[in-house]
Amino acid sequence: MNSFNFYSPTEFVFGKDTEKQCGTLVKKYGGSRVLVHYGSGSAVRSGLIERVTASLEAAGITYFLLGGVKPNPRDTKIREGIAICKKENVDFILSVGGGSCIDSSKAIALGSLYDGDFWDFYGTGKPVERALPVGTVLTIAAAGSEGSGASVVTKEEGMEKRDTGSDLLRPKFSVMNPELLFTLPAYQTACGATDIMAHVFERYFTTTPEVNVTDRLCEALLLTMIQETPRVLADPCNYEARANIMWAGTVAHNDIVGVGRAQDWNSHGLEHELSGLYDVAHGAGLAVVMPAWMEYVVDTDVMRFAQVAVRVWGCQMDYFNPRNTALAGIRAFRQFLHSIGMPINFEELGAKEEDIPTLVEKLGIGDGVRGGFRSLNAEDVANIYRIAAHASL
Amino acid sequence: MNSFNFYSPTEFVFGKDTEKQCGTLVKKYGGSRVLVHYGSGSAVRSGLIERVTASLEAAGITYFLLGGVKPNPRDTKIREGIAICKKENVDFILSVGGGSCIDSSKAIALGSLYDGDFWDFYGTGKPVERALPVGTVLTIAAAGSEGSGASVVTKEEGMEKRDTGSDLLRPKFSVMNPELLFTLPAYQTACGATDIMAHVFERYFTTTPEVNVTDRLCEALLLTMIQETPRVLADPCNYEARANIMWAGTVAHNDIVGVGRAQDWNSHGLEHELSGLYDVAHGAGLAVVMPAWMEYVVDTDVMRFAQVAVRVWGCQMDYFNPRNTALAGIRAFRQFLHSIGMPINFEELGAKEEDIPTLVEKLGIGDGVRGGFRSLNAEDVANIYRIAAHASL
Repeated sequence: MNSFNFYSPTEFVFGKDTEKQCGTLVKKYGGSRVLVHYGSGSAVRSGLIERVTASLEAAGITYFLLGGVKPNPRDTKIREGIAICKKENVDFILSVGGGSCIDSSKAIALGSLYDGDFWDFYGTGKPVERALPVGTVLTIAAAGSEGSGASVVTKEEGMEKRDTGSDLLRPKFSVMNPELLFTLPAYQTACGATDIMAHVFERYFTTTPEVNVTDRLCEALLLTMIQETPRVLADPCNYEARANIMWAGTVAHNDIVGVGRAQDWNSHGLEHELSGLYDVAHGAGLAVVMPAWMEYVVDTDVMRFAQVAVRVWGCQMDYFNPRNTALAGIRAFRQFLHSIGMPINFEELGAKEEDIPTLVEKLGIGDGVRGGFRSLNAEDVANIYRIAAHASL
Repeated sequence: MNSFNFYSPTEFVFGKDTEKQCGTLVKKYGGSRVLVHYGSGSAVRSGLIERVTASLEAAGITYFLLGGVKPNPRDTKIREGIAICKKENVDFILSVGGGSCIDSSKAIALGSLYDGDFWDFYGTGKPVERALPVGTVLTIAAAGSEGSGASVVTKEEGMEKRDTGSDLLRPKFSVMNPELLFTLPAYQTACGATDIMAHVFERYFTTTPEVNVTDRLCEALLLTMIQETPRVLADPCNYEARANIMWAGTVAHNDIVGVGRAQDWNSHGLEHELSGLYDVAHGAGLAVVMPAWMEYVVDTDVMRFAQVAVRVWGCQMDYFNPRNTALAGIRAFRQFLHSIGMPINFEELGAKEEDIPTLVEKLGIGDGVRGGFRSLNAEDVANIYRIAAHASL
């Protein structure tokens, strides 16, 4: 097991009606002038924003509203938020939405206390030294941003999607009411489930030997998602199923199942170019890329793929030829993704094979390699995109 | 799933040589005058205390030493610690040891900022309002106290063992170096493993329906313990096995696998009377009590016991008679405990059947009942002790 620091100080407030605690929570964490940052109009139409602002008012907190965050959130909206925060001396950001909203809020949080351009921190490894505190009210179980220090946003010019991360960006609190997810359309629900599973797999495929405890915890989350996702698609207002997925999404990405091991994250890198170029949902892009990546790298560690095939997908172990089991597990994953309504190849996603050179170019690894479970050069990346382009059940 | 708040702000610093970071960490969390509280002489003989104090000195931190904490830690030593803290204006407690040491440190932490007797908080539900910050250097994987807000200590007069808990008692940081466990004797290692498994089971047996994600996470930890405990007993200096158990022990008790569900904790209650009366190891007492409790309450939810039997102990599901599977799982647990050198009945523990009325009396539930998976009255408790007294493989 590798050495690690694990620090997850976010207070998770989970259950029905918890959004009514926003005022008290913001106050507890020192906020008095709050930017309420939200995504789609549905948060307004459903009355959620009204309940949140009523709670702020009851606590005597001044607030400013900024709506309209889009999926694959753009720098332009972030700059708007930073301008408000600087002008109005905002001291707390309350993010009401899913991953796109929360990731943007984190960008606003660090940009508001920085003299230069917030984009300096994205894709550069420049360390975050200061950020406004952020709280969240989660409306989509997917990104895990409610419990992580990560943020991924897109620069409109060139549609570059880049990330940053710091413990300073971990939310102070996250309000999680599974009922807020009842109205989420099936496609978005499935995209979210795919993202959650991808967060686990990115940690599962490791070169670090014998980190059995986190292997088992990862498998626990995958088994949960396989059990609960079809339930929630069949019955969108099933509180228990929504609650299980919602908590799994947080645990999948606050890194408690990823500590002590090298992680991969190449599928996320490859996917970001897809959603950057085509503006498709991140989860949908992952559904196309991740099984293709698995097929390409399976021989890096056949027994690891066999392990997940047996323990998670219920495949029989082929002791004579474990590779058969490994491949059966990958097939089961793709079939599962198809069964929950996810695209499994470029055509279903709306991507084009002839764009593969552009995707590889934008990923920008040149002849170099990327770390992780298996290092990839530009040719490897092109090969993976080609497998993804033509994948079938 | 029940509503819950989850807040675990402890920074875990895990890996080789991490004890050398103590000075930096104490400083980071505001300590300048530190009580270094430790248990047995082995922490001194191994050079651990020297490395810790050297690290404090290098950071320019003043410290006071208090050693000699015993298992089932006593109020007398705690009062000694409180006196030092009050006299020397100590502002941070660094606990170097296992659960007994850390639990005592938490008692000192709350008692040092309280005008009355620290015992007022134990077994009474009196809320903790202030406490000195605590950091830990863990030397036994067992109690999970390094990541929890719980504390259990014993009053010498009458040997009463009582508990308290508060998020204020969660350590600021916990240093976890698996190498520090290499010299731990097999019996103590096995007692620790039993305690870790018991912390999971106390959460697993719930009346809350459909908390599948935490069920799965609990099973992941149990599977880890079943895999790693025999490895570490056969090869005490196996870093990977020690590391897996050490992290499992923390995750088992910081409550990430227990949120959203009613928990039981009756086995712990019954055990505390055993270790209180006979001064035996907590883990050993649990090995005797917990399977007996399981046999007594199995009919409360046969399918829950069948689930853990199949998923964790690898039993075949008897679809005609799930109770057979449920009982096979309990037998497998007891056999596992025996295989790692734990006692399984009163005789092996050094307890006496004729003391059962005393044990029941000291537990002090009278004709009342206790909550949890199944409410128990005094007669139930006596029955469970009787099963425990006579248990065999």
